[in-house]
Amino acid sequence: MQPYAEMSTEELQALRKKLSAEYKGYQAKDLRLDMSRGKPSVEQLDLSMGMMDVLSSGDDLTCEDGTDCRNYGVLTGIKEAKELIGDMMEVAPDNIIIYGNSSLNVMFDTVSRSMTHGVMGCTPWCRLDKVKFLCPVPGYDRHFAITEYFGIEMVNVPMLPTGPDMDMVEELVSGDESIKGIWCVPKYSNPTGNSYSDETVRRMARLKPAAPDFRIYWDNAYGIHHLYDHDQDHLIEILAECKRAGNPDMVYKFSSTSKISFPGSGIAAIAASRNNLEDIEKQLKYQTIGHDKVNQLRHVRYFKNIHGMVEHMRLHADVMRPKFEAVIRILDQELGGLGIGSWTEPKGGYFISFDSMDGCAKAIVARCKKAGLVMTGAGATYPYGKDPHDSNIRIAPSYPPLGDLELAMELFALCVKIVSVDKLLADRKSEN
Amino acid sequence: MQPYAEMSTEELQALRKKLSAEYKGYQAKDLRLDMSRGKPSVEQLDLSMGMMDVLSSGDDLTCEDGTDCRNYGVLTGIKEAKELIGDMMEVAPDNIIIYGNSSLNVMFDTVSRSMTHGVMGCTPWCRLDKVKFLCPVPGYDRHFAITEYFGIEMVNVPMLPTGPDMDMVEELVSGDESIKGIWCVPKYSNPTGNSYSDETVRRMARLKPAAPDFRIYWDNAYGIHHLYDHDQDHLIEILAECKRAGNPDMVYKFSSTSKISFPGSGIAAIAASRNNLEDIEKQLKYQTIGHDKVNQLRHVRYFKNIHGMVEHMRLHADVMRPKFEAVIRILDQELGGLGIGSWTEPKGGYFISFDSMDGCAKAIVARCKKAGLVMTGAGATYPYGKDPHDSNIRIAPSYPPLGDLELAMELFALCVKIVSVDKLLADRKSEN
Repeated sequence: MQPYAEMSTEELQALRKKLSAEYKGYQAKDLRLDMSRGKPSVEQLDLSMGMMDVLSSGDDLTCEDGTDCRNYGVLTGIKEAKELIGDMMEVAPDNIIIYGNSSLNVMFDTVSRSMTHGVMGCTPWCRLDKVKFLCPVPGYDRHFAITEYFGIEMVNVPMLPTGPDMDMVEELVSGDESIKGIWCVPKYSNPTGNSYSDETVRRMARLKPAAPDFRIYWDNAYGIHHLYDHDQDHLIEILAECKRAGNPDMVYKFSSTSKISFPGSGIAAIAASRNNLEDIEKQLKYQTIGHDKVNQLRHVRYFKNIHGMVEHMRLHADVMRPKFEAVIRILDQELGGLGIGSWTEPKGGYFISFDSMDGCAKAIVARCKKAGLVMTGAGATYPYGKDPHDSNIRIAPSYPPLGDLELAMELFALCVKIVSVDKLLADRKSEN
Repeated sequence: MQPYAEMSTEELQALRKKLSAEYKGYQAKDLRLDMSRGKPSVEQLDLSMGMMDVLSSGDDLTCEDGTDCRNYGVLTGIKEAKELIGDMMEVAPDNIIIYGNSSLNVMFDTVSRSMTHGVMGCTPWCRLDKVKFLCPVPGYDRHFAITEYFGIEMVNVPMLPTGPDMDMVEELVSGDESIKGIWCVPKYSNPTGNSYSDETVRRMARLKPAAPDFRIYWDNAYGIHHLYDHDQDHLIEILAECKRAGNPDMVYKFSSTSKISFPGSGIAAIAASRNNLEDIEKQLKYQTIGHDKVNQLRHVRYFKNIHGMVEHMRLHADVMRPKFEAVIRILDQELGGLGIGSWTEPKGGYFISFDSMDGCAKAIVARCKKAGLVMTGAGATYPYGKDPHDSNIRIAPSYPPLGDLELAMELFALCVKIVSVDKLLADRKSEN
């Protein structure tokens, strides 16, 4: 394929006409395709229906230690659930607090508590003039939304293929006491799908923050969400690494079963040092009568153990793999060699990150929408919704059936082409 | 029975010996009885086991409006659940947000949000020098714990048989802008079991608070938790009454199914004006991916409608009624006419409130404990755990089986007698 930039203006104009005709063809189809969020597909949800059968009226809803899951009590989670989620999160059960149905809610709570009560005895953030978070970009919009909601200033740090730019992270964190956290999706990152390299994790654990209440917000949302049996990313476990580095209290690790069992009806957890957990438990006893133990038990009885969960994730992978492969295949076929976009090729997670030419992302997403395809809003992967290059688009292949997805990606590629041609033509015009 | 105060010192001393011997008899039994919390009994939990069967792998987990309860989406609760809980709370579905498994958590969140973001545009409480809450006493320890956790100053207001002393409430609320809330358990109150009179509710709705962000925290925890089919307390619905009084935004109403289905695995809700709910929803979208819709659907499919729920509560009443009646009967038998204690006779809820002679409550609870009976800590029904008269003790009859409960109440009455005799003897000694 000839790169668009090397085409003559006449060639581009001719191409533009051809692409327009194709686009009109899509518009005539009256499509309604949604690739905006990392939602599991119906096929994936069906995988967990057996969970509805593991507890019935004839079953004993009692834990191994005698706790009746149907009644009040047990603030930090039943023992069996801590073991299962501990194995899932690669930490000891004692370093776990089981929460409700949403890890986002745990992160929100963690920031909220830091605002009102501070972190392990430090000044509550609401009494400080300035609080900042580092935000690797592109990143997860719901992370950025939490910090924005609490008036926390967000500082962009570029995501490299190996993770956040650690030179910049080290310099900022050690030099500025107002930096209290960094948002991380370390494995199959949202949206790039890249995982942090060993060096990145080691440097993260060895940070020397100016603020004693600086914490790494380690959202390991896709810890066991692989696409392949063998070709998997591996991440150094951050709690253990922080401990080895002499920074045992520097990290909060978050996870949930949202994309393992049912989104919104799973169980979430935080993992951290005992010092951090004791700090959190001081709040927890005022905050709730405890989380849903019946649902914890349901998860334990269904998955049995981490092996059961991993096997279950292979079934998810069987659904997800063809979708990721279709996206990559179509991007390769349609856009390969054109020099108008680049994309990641993740081995797991829920997203593929696409970068258009500068200044094209908003126009591409808008053009998709006009033909019935909803993508994640351009800019969403940046704090305040402001992508300085207007180039990043998050592709979420999970929800549509494979046929729809292929159609959607063909339409997407077409929109990338159209907007890119327009951009090149406009640039040439303004140069003349 | 002869009132203890009219007995001679010699008579009291002789009585004391007799009581001591009885007490030793109890100590020899090595009892382990727990009446400390308002926990449903195993028999009550068994009533809801059918809930485990309403959703199975063969069922369609789709709402009437097509929402797949197994996936992300629907922030404020599924429509069917809003209807059911709306009927339970006596408000329209549109005035409801369904939360997770704990109404305490909803209250905590409400205070926490007011601290960090303020109420409907007012200054966040964390930026104010002083924030106060009115606390009808005796009241619910977990309410007081939340306000104490956030450094909110608590002001005692006496609970009368008709509800809080409204003369005092009106004066305080209208004269002090730092008063931002009042904790209320309006029906079968914790711990008195009394319900607010019509006049109290009307005056509550007509408060003229100095603070525009003053809110009534109306924790209607026992709205349908009657003991009798016909002899039931009735409460004027507060949202409607506030609306009629021209104060539509002045109240947050809280409730849950904790003591209807399973504590910790039920669903909780807030009811409020649309203005308040919109204020709350602004936070909710950052706070969570939504609450557990499968569990909402489970409740709807199980109870079907409010009639189903009310019929279910009759089964709870059949378990609770003999327990309440046993407590009252034993208190009457053992302490009636002795002038050493008084108690309430609720028609619903989870508690009976006992008042000893001044200065005796801590000693009674301690003496119970030494014989193997755990009561709610004396003082727990007051802010900061400080009962100025040291007289109030909360009796929670729900958890122990009836036989244990009777034994516990006999032991309790014995401890009241012993401590009261000691008190009378000590008073006489100090008078001499």
